[in-house]
Amino acid sequence: MTLKTRKDYLASLKKMRPNIYKFGELIKDVTTHPATKRTVESHALNYDASHEPEWADTYTATSIFSGDKIHRWTSMMQSSEDLITNMKLKRQNYRRTGTCTGGVCVGWNALNVLWAITQDMDEDNGTKYQERLKAWILEAQDKGLVVAGALTDAKGDRSLKPSEQDDPDLNLRIKEIRDDGIVIRGAKLMICGVAASHEIFLLPGGIYKETEKDFAVACVVPRDIEGLTVIEASRPSDRRDLEETAEGEVPNTGITQGLLLFDDVFVPNARIFMSGETKYTRNIIQYFTANYRACIGACVTGQGDVMIGASVLVARANGLSMKTFANKLVEMSINNQITYGLGVGACAMGFQHKAGSYFADPMTAHTNKVMVATLPYETKRLTQEIGGGIVETGCLPSYQDFTNPEYGEELHKYYRAGSVSADTRYKAARLAEWLTIGGGVPGCMHGGGSPDGARLVIRFGTPYEEYVDYARNLMGIEEEVPDPQKK
Amino acid sequence: MTLKTRKDYLASLKKMRPNIYKFGELIKDVTTHPATKRTVESHALNYDASHEPEWADTYTATSIFSGDKIHRWTSMMQSSEDLITNMKLKRQNYRRTGTCTGGVCVGWNALNVLWAITQDMDEDNGTKYQERLKAWILEAQDKGLVVAGALTDAKGDRSLKPSEQDDPDLNLRIKEIRDDGIVIRGAKLMICGVAASHEIFLLPGGIYKETEKDFAVACVVPRDIEGLTVIEASRPSDRRDLEETAEGEVPNTGITQGLLLFDDVFVPNARIFMSGETKYTRNIIQYFTANYRACIGACVTGQGDVMIGASVLVARANGLSMKTFANKLVEMSINNQITYGLGVGACAMGFQHKAGSYFADPMTAHTNKVMVATLPYETKRLTQEIGGGIVETGCLPSYQDFTNPEYGEELHKYYRAGSVSADTRYKAARLAEWLTIGGGVPGCMHGGGSPDGARLVIRFGTPYEEYVDYARNLMGIEEEVPDPQKK
Amino acid sequence: MTLKTRKDYLASLKKMRPNIYKFGELIKDVTTHPATKRTVESHALNYDASHEPEWADTYTATSIFSGDKIHRWTSMMQSSEDLITNMKLKRQNYRRTGTCTGGVCVGWNALNVLWAITQDMDEDNGTKYQERLKAWILEAQDKGLVVAGALTDAKGDRSLKPSEQDDPDLNLRIKEIRDDGIVIRGAKLMICGVAASHEIFLLPGGIYKETEKDFAVACVVPRDIEGLTVIEASRPSDRRDLEETAEGEVPNTGITQGLLLFDDVFVPNARIFMSGETKYTRNIIQYFTANYRACIGACVTGQGDVMIGASVLVARANGLSMKTFANKLVEMSINNQITYGLGVGACAMGFQHKAGSYFADPMTAHTNKVMVATLPYETKRLTQEIGGGIVETGCLPSYQDFTNPEYGEELHKYYRAGSVSADTRYKAARLAEWLTIGGGVPGCMHGGGSPDGARLVIRFGTPYEEYVDYARNLMGIEEEVPDPQKK
Amino acid sequence: MTLKTRKDYLASLKKMRPNIYKFGELIKDVTTHPATKRTVESHALNYDASHEPEWADTYTATSIFSGDKIHRWTSMMQSSEDLITNMKLKRQNYRRTGTCTGGVCVGWNALNVLWAITQDMDEDNGTKYQERLKAWILEAQDKGLVVAGALTDAKGDRSLKPSEQDDPDLNLRIKEIRDDGIVIRGAKLMICGVAASHEIFLLPGGIYKETEKDFAVACVVPRDIEGLTVIEASRPSDRRDLEETAEGEVPNTGITQGLLLFDDVFVPNARIFMSGETKYTRNIIQYFTANYRACIGACVTGQGDVMIGASVLVARANGLSMKTFANKLVEMSINNQITYGLGVGACAMGFQHKAGSYFADPMTAHTNKVMVATLPYETKRLTQEIGGGIVETGCLPSYQDFTNPEYGEELHKYYRAGSVSADTRYKAARLAEWLTIGGGVPGCMHGGGSPDGARLVIRFGTPYEEYVDYARNLMGIEEEVPDPQKK
Repeated sequence: MTLKTRKDYLASLKKMRPNIYKFGELIKDVTTHPATKRTVESHALNYDASHEPEWADTYTATSIFSGDKIHRWTSMMQSSEDLITNMKLKRQNYRRTGTCTGGVCVGWNALNVLWAITQDMDEDNGTKYQERLKAWILEAQDKGLVVAGALTDAKGDRSLKPSEQDDPDLNLRIKEIRDDGIVIRGAKLMICGVAASHEIFLLPGGIYKETEKDFAVACVVPRDIEGLTVIEASRPSDRRDLEETAEGEVPNTGITQGLLLFDDVFVPNARIFMSGETKYTRNIIQYFTANYRACIGACVTGQGDVMIGASVLVARANGLSMKTFANKLVEMSINNQITYGLGVGACAMGFQHKAGSYFADPMTAHTNKVMVATLPYETKRLTQEIGGGIVETGCLPSYQDFTNPEYGEELHKYYRAGSVSADTRYKAARLAEWLTIGGGVPGCMHGGGSPDGARLVIRFGTPYEEYVDYARNLMGIEEEVPDPQKK
Repeated sequence: MTLKTRKDYLASLKKMRPNIYKFGELIKDVTTHPATKRTVESHALNYDASHEPEWADTYTATSIFSGDKIHRWTSMMQSSEDLITNMKLKRQNYRRTGTCTGGVCVGWNALNVLWAITQDMDEDNGTKYQERLKAWILEAQDKGLVVAGALTDAKGDRSLKPSEQDDPDLNLRIKEIRDDGIVIRGAKLMICGVAASHEIFLLPGGIYKETEKDFAVACVVPRDIEGLTVIEASRPSDRRDLEETAEGEVPNTGITQGLLLFDDVFVPNARIFMSGETKYTRNIIQYFTANYRACIGACVTGQGDVMIGASVLVARANGLSMKTFANKLVEMSINNQITYGLGVGACAMGFQHKAGSYFADPMTAHTNKVMVATLPYETKRLTQEIGGGIVETGCLPSYQDFTNPEYGEELHKYYRAGSVSADTRYKAARLAEWLTIGGGVPGCMHGGGSPDGARLVIRFGTPYEEYVDYARNLMGIEEEVPDPQKK
Repeated sequence: MTLKTRKDYLASLKKMRPNIYKFGELIKDVTTHPATKRTVESHALNYDASHEPEWADTYTATSIFSGDKIHRWTSMMQSSEDLITNMKLKRQNYRRTGTCTGGVCVGWNALNVLWAITQDMDEDNGTKYQERLKAWILEAQDKGLVVAGALTDAKGDRSLKPSEQDDPDLNLRIKEIRDDGIVIRGAKLMICGVAASHEIFLLPGGIYKETEKDFAVACVVPRDIEGLTVIEASRPSDRRDLEETAEGEVPNTGITQGLLLFDDVFVPNARIFMSGETKYTRNIIQYFTANYRACIGACVTGQGDVMIGASVLVARANGLSMKTFANKLVEMSINNQITYGLGVGACAMGFQHKAGSYFADPMTAHTNKVMVATLPYETKRLTQEIGGGIVETGCLPSYQDFTNPEYGEELHKYYRAGSVSADTRYKAARLAEWLTIGGGVPGCMHGGGSPDGARLVIRFGTPYEEYVDYARNLMGIEEEVPDPQKK
Repeated sequence: MTLKTRKDYLASLKKMRPNIYKFGELIKDVTTHPATKRTVESHALNYDASHEPEWADTYTATSIFSGDKIHRWTSMMQSSEDLITNMKLKRQNYRRTGTCTGGVCVGWNALNVLWAITQDMDEDNGTKYQERLKAWILEAQDKGLVVAGALTDAKGDRSLKPSEQDDPDLNLRIKEIRDDGIVIRGAKLMICGVAASHEIFLLPGGIYKETEKDFAVACVVPRDIEGLTVIEASRPSDRRDLEETAEGEVPNTGITQGLLLFDDVFVPNARIFMSGETKYTRNIIQYFTANYRACIGACVTGQGDVMIGASVLVARANGLSMKTFANKLVEMSINNQITYGLGVGACAMGFQHKAGSYFADPMTAHTNKVMVATLPYETKRLTQEIGGGIVETGCLPSYQDFTNPEYGEELHKYYRAGSVSADTRYKAARLAEWLTIGGGVPGCMHGGGSPDGARLVIRFGTPYEEYVDYARNLMGIEEEVPDPQKK
């Protein structure tokens, strides 16, 4: 087997069936269409990194199944070191692309979670899911696939279970079980990086009780499978992408999110890893979120690295030394170090499933989720504070104006501050804008679930009674002190 | 005199010389062009309010010069009540427009500051500036003008004074003094609401020493004066404005910022209120920022009111009760109450200039500036946290997709959560997006100067030695304890 | 009438019946006993200030009843200016005493609240409470009394109403109504400044329903009335008070809290201002907390002033310039300015009761309570951060060791840092300790009620539906969007 | 060799020469004197834990030198696991003692740091330090010693180097070098746990240049060595310790700090591990602080565990369910998880010195120091907010009053709230007080150096230019953008 390259990757995407829409238009070629090409390029950079001596150790791994050298984002994670390398890769991705590369994130996590879950199911129920999964993983490793992942269902009325909704499609469901596979129907919303992916790993969107068998489905489907339609999401700044100059966008990279409409899609047995086993959905969610929320610290830290860089850059382009902002830059660095260090801490305190899969410590991982949902916002605020009015009020002319034959030169004269060119100042300010209020702001607060969900895990994971006993012991209180009951 | 109406206002704007550009194009009619019509509408609502019984007291005042009923935004502010009413008007403006109405803010403040400063200059130097100013104010009151205001110069190399720059135009300057007026040249950047204004009040952009006479200029010019070109600034989401559906924009209102290029503009004497008197630039800046930074609390509070409303709205459209987010909503309310209450506190502790003008307490006003530069960011973060992934990851299809004949209906099915329609949910989420990462995010952090500037005022305004003496007295320390000197 | 002096004050306290205990001992003379003399001295300073030209305007007022010059802490507050002067007095008290002077705070507020409430009751029910109150106020003004105030009952089981408790005494109650007065029984906890007071104003501790008539009592009693026993509270550092050197205490001033045990105390009719009118307890609490929580901002700001002074002092005694800590000192100043400015804002937005009493704006006042419960803690943390290990780890020898004949001189040698004497450094560090972890830390978080109580007021005072309508109007959403109901 | 027990430990302390003073008095027996017995008991608990099956793995280790089972606090730390176990031990110590056990912290770290440094010195200079150190470590392991550690010098004028001070003793120094050892002189301040220790490890207090040879000394001395006098520090609440009932103190455990006066103390060669090698002082400080500041996260987390327990306890004793405070308790848990998880992250990202010693990642460790200097303060504030006025205003009677024969019973009646006894409520409130404003508040902000020192490490450790390059690359900016130079 040969490790795939950027060229292989782009070629494979071009071959796929067009089924992605944006602005009401079918995108023929995701690698060249302005709405998706930046996302594809972000992921192409991962293939490049796999072949660069400096980064090969991070971006590749050895398959525990075949012994082959594979892209790391299809590898099994079986130790804290493996999880920490996941974090390194993610931090680096941000530094290179200025945003998230979601196509190499969720699917990777999903296949590792399912590795543990399928073994549990097989042991309990005599199914053969793990075998199937292994076969598919080997294929994914061999083909060097980018596998997006999808959890979030449409959900409908949240006070009702999936089976109680007025429309059963509101959660992705098994509509029909055939001998050779299943037919699924429904939608998955908020899928990151789907335009750059080959396949999509589907997981149940919640913890289900026995009654919800139809919704306990895990499987993997090609992105261009028959019956699947993808709609790209639209963000405030995305019209800029469509223009030639693409002012305010980083020129090459980017990320998009999409939503999936499944209109009776047939999935063959070989690609089904859970079908009705509701009891195991709890562990899917718990394992998945633990790893996701530990490692997402690396994403926002990488973003923080770029925000620090952009802040220094725009300060200098404004004619100011970075020393002016030393305290703020240290604060940004501290925010960064917290989300990264806490993620690593969660990895280091993790545990190994008997199947070999390694999962991060939930309490620390969920704490990191809360940090991820707060600290980067402060870093963004600081980026705008350091950048000055040019960044924050966005008081820059459009690129068409900035380069207008009549008055563009005059604008250049007024936008130069000191020795740095007006053009660099313009770009630096647009980068800061992009990172703080533009296309580069990814969905880290709710991606992988809400911070309030994380707080719930912390609430129910803290051993309050044990802590009460420490307090009682210290003071020699022998009386039992239970929680007062409502009268 | 008759109080002008929306109709008068729109008609007067239509008559003006087109000199505003965006995307390389000259805007013929600011009242109808998609890039400016929302800003104009925001200001037209102020004329409406002047005639509404519920709001007339807030939006109109009695001229202390003519005794006529006038639009409040051209009135003299001579008591803390006047300043507090300024705040009420601003809070209400946000509630109605979802953003700032900068055309009725800076010019109003400027004319009040100059009222005090011209009296000081006239008394010291025998000039007749105040008389001229009074004449112009009467005209502005009579015509019901919207007067934008401009302070920020291009500045060039910030380590050099205006006179030391390699290009003297980098700060707006008096190029020539004639018998009947002056010729000015240079640029003013970051001007809010200029597209909706009739005139622009120009103030010096800094505190100047004797050597910088050419830059100590205060005057007022029609927005369409010969030699003045306005370039509208460009923001991440502003291409949406140009589309028919304008997805993600509030349908009617908005705000824009622009920059002004002065190419040898002649200003007649009657409109000049300072010309070379550098010594008074310090007080211009101090009085201006004190009032500006006290009252800006009302703007962000109004924005906070709308963010609270949008948060509750989108939560409900997501199918969740606002009780779920009670703590977060209280936190948002507290943030709001701080910026408003602190602004009122600054007004209540203000002082009256002998000319009658009333100015807010600087220490409290600058403290409020720091709050304005921090708390609304947390309120935005909370809006995104409450709104959920639909708001924060922006995972909504474009309006073209959402209403697409082929799959739009299917999208509607999946975006309905509970009893609220998918359309309302879509709009609610777009409003939250607009307020937190879209076109509704105004420049409150650096507008009116940077928070670090405010911190400097606080640093030099705190009476540290007096506080040291309290400490010494309490402990009976008789030894003098001066600050250690560098060796 | 003559304005009382320190001498009058001390003489009057000496004449009172001893009924205050601490450490199991009856305190014979509160003006000389080491456990109470500092509190008395703090209040004596208020009498001094009433006679000092610089402070007389703040510390005295003109009686609206008699036209006499009176101590301000017995005056009627009938405008925002009156409330703001209350704040000025409180800030100054902290600066002079390094702590709170609770004896001139709660009673003052109480008599103003009751002025409004008694008028309401009299108008509704034909009672004559206000007349009685006026007579007592005139006496208090004439005698220059210090009137402590008491609200907090023991409460017992908080899930039960007063009348439902297993012991009716758990809330202060009317045990018997006689022709000439009432007999009260129960306890009031957490009374500030009682040891320095002449009289105590008792208010109901909660909002009561019709069934709780016995607990709806407002009256005023001499501190040494028959049947009343006061127990002084004990704080971690209070044993230091008892030593001759009183290391770690400010030498002269201080504050104490106490609790009151009422063992069938007879209160004559002339001193009763509410007796069973439960309906008015709501307004008592609302008016009281509004003023209290607006003005408490001044107390913690005064404390902040001293903490800033102590921080600079100890930094210099450590040999460091205050410039080293410029950012932290600005942050402390900002914290200070918020609690003060927000308090003033609440006063400025207040309202006048028809009886003439003026009350602060509740929403802003309660917001300030939340600030008072958070910001000073950060200021304390910064004081410890600036002060260094000498303050924070408390690694200073005892004063007995520091002045020990054998090794005291050696300790002085090692505790001098630069040009400031070791003795000053010692005192400066002990002051910072006292302010942050010692006797000078007053109870500002729960004094006047809990911050969670304040948050509740904010929660129920925010007009959410109005804000939702702003959001709907902006987006043109016509659908009603009510809060989802539980199913 | 046999693992020492509590009995051995107490017996060995009793045998030592009395040289510790407090309140001007020589303490004869640290194991029984009320000023020190609590500290000794805290450390005795560590010996107990070494013999408890549940804790033996944490509290003991196998000597890499002798293969013997030893107390872990004398072990070599040679992997991230070893560091993480250090953290576990520290967290547990707090849970058991309610405070820090400083005697098993600094010395342990010091011997591991010197293990690396002595190897470096020996390799470079042919000295034989490591051999000596090994011999001493073996002895410490064999005897099961508690080894305190001391870095902080008196320092004098901080703008001068040690050799420039007017008194050379202001930093601990080598006064004389003899054939058989050295004579040292000076003082070390802020030594934690010295009263419970057998020996004290002395390290240089700063990074020294070549000129400061006399101050580059590392050695270990018995706590009762001739010429050494220890003065215990005094804290606000420590007079309570001396009373029989010791109200407000945890009954058995505690911590004290002291300062050391060296009056020409002779140290034999066998106990000297650095003597004049200034060049290596930098690494001593760097290695020491990295480990110290990673692991200190565990201490404050343990304290946080107890604060959570105390909060729940006092809430219940107040008659309130912990559900009332769910959000605050989650926030406390998050604070805890951050300081612990970040510490573990620093350990996991550490590095191994060629001598085998393992050190934590400095950037993450110093970030944790900043967290340790902030988050626990918020946790304390929350403890007081949850605890209510009884905790925060300290409005509890003294224990003498609470148990007074005359009115004690009445007080018990009023302090019972619901079903929990008044006695338990009293103790719970005193524990919360002790943890937040009393004797249990240890010096975690400046212990091991100041947070500003940590911020400096972060400032100089952040690769700003690398981050600028990420920003430039993303935007395709080819221009170099160096920091503007001062003109």
